[in-house]
Amino acid sequence: MLADQSFFAQRGSTQEVEEGHTFAPKFDADGLLTCVATDAGSGEVLMVAHMNADALAKTIATGEAWYFSRSRRRLWRKGETSGHVQRVVEMRVDCDQDAVWIKVEQAGPGACHTGRRSCFYRAVPLGAGAATAVTLEFRDADKAFDPNDVYGGGTSKRDP
Amino acid sequence: MLADQSFFAQRGSTQEVEEGHTFAPKFDADGLLTCVATDAGSGEVLMVAHMNADALAKTIATGEAWYFSRSRRRLWRKGETSGHVQRVVEMRVDCDQDAVWIKVEQAGPGACHTGRRSCFYRAVPLGAGAATAVTLEFRDADKAFDPNDVYGGGTSKRDP
Repeated sequence: MLADQSFFAQRGSTQEVEEGHTFAPKFDADGLLTCVATDAGSGEVLMVAHMNADALAKTIATGEAWYFSRSRRRLWRKGETSGHVQRVVEMRVDCDQDAVWIKVEQAGPGACHTGRRSCFYRAVPLGAGAATAVTLEFRDADKAFDPNDVYGGGTSKRDP
Repeated sequence: MLADQSFFAQRGSTQEVEEGHTFAPKFDADGLLTCVATDAGSGEVLMVAHMNADALAKTIATGEAWYFSRSRRRLWRKGETSGHVQRVVEMRVDCDQDAVWIKVEQAGPGACHTGRRSCFYRAVPLGAGAATAVTLEFRDADKAFDPNDVYGGGTSKRDP
């Protein structure tokens, strides 16, 4: 199966898109929509990635997260190399249907290819004047696994 | 102040981007990066929106969420019409620095222009074969406010 955008309903009026029961996802000019994956237990944001129509259809059909890599221009099943698959507990769509939120059970020690539990392991300090010379602060940044063990040293097989 | 991308550091090597302390956000071809806003208390995902360099700089400087509306092609301060501003408690950036996650204190009854607490008030059912005729299920979809009262009936002033 290779699903394209015609696999989903065509978009109707704003009223239908926002208040209706029809799933009519809005893909951008590159054919992608944004997906936020949170940990179903802790609520922590694990990662933000993109889905094309095929990734979205496969995620819905299988209950496991599939994405589309913008850098590698290809579909990938999360965990296909690392084994760190994501079982989708619930999928939500937002008001204008151009983003989905999936609550997942993350298999293995982490979601991030750098070895962390979450991709969001650095904080951006806030406050006037901070933007000119922001120094990121590492938070919750302990490595949960060694990416070289999981991905074999190269970067080409890493997800994402 | 009108910040552009030169306001932020230039991007270095993958190692520097992923493991460094330098904030070097990656804007897409349209000059945008993705922002996920979650409720600092409940952890619920409230909305997904985009920031250009100016919105990002203003958010960092002021500690309130600014976004860039793709549909209206303009900067907006969240809550500028509704009063439902978002005070940013913490900002995180992800591994490749093309997405930020903000934990916010949401002023007023809700973040969504449709009147809900969160923009993600519908679930997409999962399971084999479901994608061909998905029927969305409303969840946590009670209206927290009447958008006509807040925005005056039109849609042009609504945020987002």
